[in-house]
Amino acid sequence: MKTDIQIAQEAKMKPIQDIAEGLHLDLEDWEPHGHYKAKLSDSLLEKLHDRPNGKVVLVTAINPTPAGEGKSTVTVGLGQAMNRINKKTIIALREPSLGPTMGIKGGAAGGGYSQVLPMEDINLHFTGDIHAITTANNALSAFIDNHIHRGNELNIDARKVGWKRVVDLNDRALRQVVVGLGGPLRGVPREDGFNITVASEIMAILCLAKNLQDLKRRLSEIVFGYTYDDKPVTVKELGMEGALTLLLKDALKPNLVQTIENTPAIIHGGPFANIAHGCNSVMATNIAAKLGDYVITEAGFGADLGAEKFLDIKTRAGEFEPDAVVIVATARALKMHGGVAKDELSYENIEALKQGMENLAKHMDTISEYGLPYVIALNRFPTDTEEELSYIQKWCEEKGVHISLTEVHANGGQGGIDLAEKVVDTVENSSKNFKRIYDLEESIEDKILKIAQKVYGASGVEYSSQAKKQLAQFEQLGWTNLPICMAKTQYSLSDDPTLLGRPTDFTITIREFSPSIGAGFIVALTGDVMTMPGLPKKPAALNMDVDENGKALGLF
Amino acid sequence: MKTDIQIAQEAKMKPIQDIAEGLHLDLEDWEPHGHYKAKLSDSLLEKLHDRPNGKVVLVTAINPTPAGEGKSTVTVGLGQAMNRINKKTIIALREPSLGPTMGIKGGAAGGGYSQVLPMEDINLHFTGDIHAITTANNALSAFIDNHIHRGNELNIDARKVGWKRVVDLNDRALRQVVVGLGGPLRGVPREDGFNITVASEIMAILCLAKNLQDLKRRLSEIVFGYTYDDKPVTVKELGMEGALTLLLKDALKPNLVQTIENTPAIIHGGPFANIAHGCNSVMATNIAAKLGDYVITEAGFGADLGAEKFLDIKTRAGEFEPDAVVIVATARALKMHGGVAKDELSYENIEALKQGMENLAKHMDTISEYGLPYVIALNRFPTDTEEELSYIQKWCEEKGVHISLTEVHANGGQGGIDLAEKVVDTVENSSKNFKRIYDLEESIEDKILKIAQKVYGASGVEYSSQAKKQLAQFEQLGWTNLPICMAKTQYSLSDDPTLLGRPTDFTITIREFSPSIGAGFIVALTGDVMTMPGLPKKPAALNMDVDENGKALGLF
Repeated sequence: MKTDIQIAQEAKMKPIQDIAEGLHLDLEDWEPHGHYKAKLSDSLLEKLHDRPNGKVVLVTAINPTPAGEGKSTVTVGLGQAMNRINKKTIIALREPSLGPTMGIKGGAAGGGYSQVLPMEDINLHFTGDIHAITTANNALSAFIDNHIHRGNELNIDARKVGWKRVVDLNDRALRQVVVGLGGPLRGVPREDGFNITVASEIMAILCLAKNLQDLKRRLSEIVFGYTYDDKPVTVKELGMEGALTLLLKDALKPNLVQTIENTPAIIHGGPFANIAHGCNSVMATNIAAKLGDYVITEAGFGADLGAEKFLDIKTRAGEFEPDAVVIVATARALKMHGGVAKDELSYENIEALKQGMENLAKHMDTISEYGLPYVIALNRFPTDTEEELSYIQKWCEEKGVHISLTEVHANGGQGGIDLAEKVVDTVENSSKNFKRIYDLEESIEDKILKIAQKVYGASGVEYSSQAKKQLAQFEQLGWTNLPICMAKTQYSLSDDPTLLGRPTDFTITIREFSPSIGAGFIVALTGDVMTMPGLPKKPAALNMDVDENGKALGLF
Repeated sequence: MKTDIQIAQEAKMKPIQDIAEGLHLDLEDWEPHGHYKAKLSDSLLEKLHDRPNGKVVLVTAINPTPAGEGKSTVTVGLGQAMNRINKKTIIALREPSLGPTMGIKGGAAGGGYSQVLPMEDINLHFTGDIHAITTANNALSAFIDNHIHRGNELNIDARKVGWKRVVDLNDRALRQVVVGLGGPLRGVPREDGFNITVASEIMAILCLAKNLQDLKRRLSEIVFGYTYDDKPVTVKELGMEGALTLLLKDALKPNLVQTIENTPAIIHGGPFANIAHGCNSVMATNIAAKLGDYVITEAGFGADLGAEKFLDIKTRAGEFEPDAVVIVATARALKMHGGVAKDELSYENIEALKQGMENLAKHMDTISEYGLPYVIALNRFPTDTEEELSYIQKWCEEKGVHISLTEVHANGGQGGIDLAEKVVDTVENSSKNFKRIYDLEESIEDKILKIAQKVYGASGVEYSSQAKKQLAQFEQLGWTNLPICMAKTQYSLSDDPTLLGRPTDFTITIREFSPSIGAGFIVALTGDVMTMPGLPKKPAALNMDVDENGKALGLF
C-alpha cells in the first residue's frame, strides 16, 4: 500500500492560478505563494458582500479514541465527492501545527486519496501564518518584560503576568521556566512558561476576527496581566496593538490550496480545541461561503468540544448559521467506546459495538439540541467486518437517521458520493431550526450548566474555591457576557478521560478560569489541560528527510 | 522631506515575473511569493554551472559610529547606478532581523531613493527564512531536552549543552533562563538562554552552504554539547539532520526582489557579524555572479569585522574571489573617530576630521593587505560642509586613491554614477592579487595573531586561562584547521569600544572560544558579545501600525 506522502507526491496538482480562476477570482483578489498555494485578499469578503452565502456543512465526530476516526480525511473526501456530483464546493480546514507533526502525528492534511496538497508545505511552514503568530505573541512578551524592566509605569505585577511565550513545537522543558535571570542587565526575574503557538490567544483572535479592524480591536483588548492592585492591563495600554496588527496582517489572509482531486480548499488558522475553540478561521469559512455553493468545514476533537464551540463561539463571531452536520464514526472507535482494548480492535465484537453506539447517540442528540439536521459518516477501515458495519447501519436506519459508509481514504471522492448525496438531501429537505445552547446574557454559571447538561449529559457543575473567587472578579470587571470556551478532555463526554461511551450521573468540575478577553471568551478549565505537548521517545521527525532532488520524505 | 516608507510606497515596482524574465530565468527557476518577491530554485547554480562568473564588488565601511554611515544605502545606490551605466548588475544583501527592526532601527532595507522593495515585507516576515531557522534551532533544543528526559542514551551532560534556544526578537529577559522546572513531567531542569535567531549557528550554516547536500552535512556536524566524559555530541548522533534539512529546504532558496529603480536584488540570510560572519548567503552571491556581469554585495559592520570575515570565511566556503572593494565613509563618522561628540557633528571641524581619517586609512591598508583594489565612497549628508568634503577628497587624491562623493539617499542611482564609473574602472584597470590573511593549516593562535596584527593593527594577542584550556581541547579534537570568526566590538579596531580612530599599541584579549563546527569556524570571543539585544525604553515598534487599507506604517 502506498503511503500518504507517496500518494500526495504522485498527484497531479493544477497551478494555483487555475484553482483561483475556477473560483472566478480576479488577479487583485489573491497572490501566489509558490506555484500551488495562494493567499486571498482580506478585502475579498467586503467585495463579495452582496453575493448570497453557500450552505455550510460542519464535520464533527464521536469522542476521539486512539483507534482514529479520520475526520479530516472524511472532510476532504466529502468535499471531493460534492464536486463529483456537481455541487460547487469548497473545503475549509485548519492549519497543522509543527509540534504534533514532528512529534507523533507526522502530518495532518487528510489521508490516502483524500488529502490537501501540497501536503509537505501544509505540514511544514505553509505560508508562515503560525510563525507570524509565534512572533507576535513573543514580541508582546518581550515588550511586557521590557516595560517592567524600564520603570514599569503601568505598575504591572510581574507575578501576575498570565501571558506566556510560545513555540510551535512540542517542548516539554519549556512548560515551566524562570526568565530574567543573571542580574540587572538581563531584566526582571519572574516565573514564565511556554505554550505551543496554536494554544495562544492570538491564534484564537486571528481565527475569530472578521477583518483587519476587528483583528486590531481584539488584539488591543488582550488582558496580559494585572497591576499590583489587581487591575487588568491590556495591550492597548502598552501601545502595542498597531505593531501586533502589522505583524499579523498577512497571516490574516486565508490560504487557498487544492485537494488530490483539485477541489479548492481554504486552510487557515489552527487553534487548539481545548484552551481555544478549535476551528479554522471565520474569514476562511465566510469567504468559502461566498465562493462556493457548499462549504465543508470541520471542528476539532468530538462534537462535545469542537462542534459545541463551533456553534456557540465561532458562528457568533462569524455571524453565520450552519446548514447541516456530519458526524464521523468508525466501527473501531465505537468498539473502543464499548470497552475493547486498542490491540483487540481488529476482532469482531458486536456486543462492544452495541455499547459503544451510545457515544454516537449522545452526539446525535446534541446536534438535534442545536436544531440542526445531520448525517452519520461511517468511515470504513480495512479490518471492519460486514456484520459490524451492517449493525451500525441498521441501528441508524431504525432511528430514521441518514448514514453513509464512506471509503474516502482508499477511493477519494468516489468513496464519498453516497455521503455527498445524503448531505445534499439533508440540506435541501430537512428542516433546520438553529439555536445556540445558551444566550450571552446568561450568567457564566448558567452558560456552563447548559453546556454540561445538554452537551455532555452531566448532572451538574462544581466549582473550586479559586473558580468561585474568579467568578466574583469577572462580575466586577464586567466579563460575564462572553461565550464560554470549555477546556475538557477530548476522550470522554465527562471531565474524566477514562469514562468512555456515554457516561451518566457525573458532574463537571471547573478548576479555574482563564479569561481570553481579546479572543472574546472565558476559558473554563476542567482537569489538566495540555497547552504544551511533549515529544515521544522516538519522535516522527527522526524519520523525516530530504532526498537528493529536494523532495520531502517521512511526512504522513 | 519624505520618509523612507513614503518613498518606498510611492515607488513603481515591476511584477517580480518581469524582474525574473529580465534575468532570463525560466519558469522552473523561480517561484513567486506574492507579486513582488520570488524564491530562486536551489538547483539554479548547478544549471548555470558553465556560465562565466560576473565581477564581485564588496561594500564595506569604516568602523561604525552612532552617526551612521549608510553602507546598505550605498550598496543599493551603487547597484542602481551600475545599471544606469549599462552594466548588468545584481545586488546581494542580508535579510533584516525583526529584533532590531522592532527595537531601534525601524527597518534595514537601504534608505531614501536607494531602497530594496517591498520594504515592508523585507523588514517584517519576508519569505519566512528567519522563521524557518528559528524553528529548526528550537526543534533541535526540544529534541536535546527530550533525549535527556527519556533515558539519555547519548550520555549528554545537561550542564554542557551549549546549544541555546532563539527568538528573532530583542528580548533581554531571555538571555539567561532556567528550563525544565516543575517536576518530572516537565523535563530535566537546566540553565539555558536564548540568542536572537540571526546569531544562531544555523543562520551561519544556511549562509555558508553551497547547496542542499552541503547544508545537510553542515547541520549533521553541529556540536550542540558534550557528554559527561567531555566528548562532543553532534546532530548526527541525535539523528536529526534529516528533519532539520527538511525544515530549512525552502529557506535555502535565495529571495529575488527589486530596488526602487527596478534593479534586481537577491536578499538572503542575515547572520550577525560578531558571533557569526555577517554576510549574506554564499548561494545568493554565487547565483548573482552567474546572472549578472557585476554583483554588489556587502558585509556587516566595518572592514575589520565584516570584510575580514567575508574574505577569510565566506569566500572560502563559496569558492570565489572578489574583484574590488568599496569602503564607505562619511564626514560625520570620520569626525566622531576624530573625537567629536554626537551632538556636535553638525558643526564643521577640520581638525577632528584630520584625526578621524586615520580610521579610514587603516581599513584602506587592510584591503591592500588582501591584495584587492578599492574605491572610497564618501556618502554625503546634508550637514556636511564643502570644506570638509573637499578635505577628504584631497586627502584621497594625494594618496592616488579613487574617491567618489555619493548622493544615493537623495538621488538614487543618479547620485552614484561617478562611484559606479570608478568601480568599473577599478575592476577593469587595477591589478588584483587576492590572498587571504591566513592559511587554514596554521595554528589557531597564528591565525588570530595575523588578524589582530594585519587587520586590527594590534601588537599582540592574549588568552584567558579558559581560552588556553580550550585551545588544548581543540587540538585533541582536531578542530584546528578551521577559519576563525572573531567576535569583537564593531566600534573600534581594538577590543575596547571606546578607542575610536586608529588605536596603536594595544593587545587583543581572547576571553573564550565557541566552536561552530557545523558552520565550520571557531568563534573567538573578545570582550562582551551581544547575542541577544535588549529593547530601548520606547521601541520603534510602538510607532508601527496598519492603516484602514492594510498599508504598513512606522517602518523606516
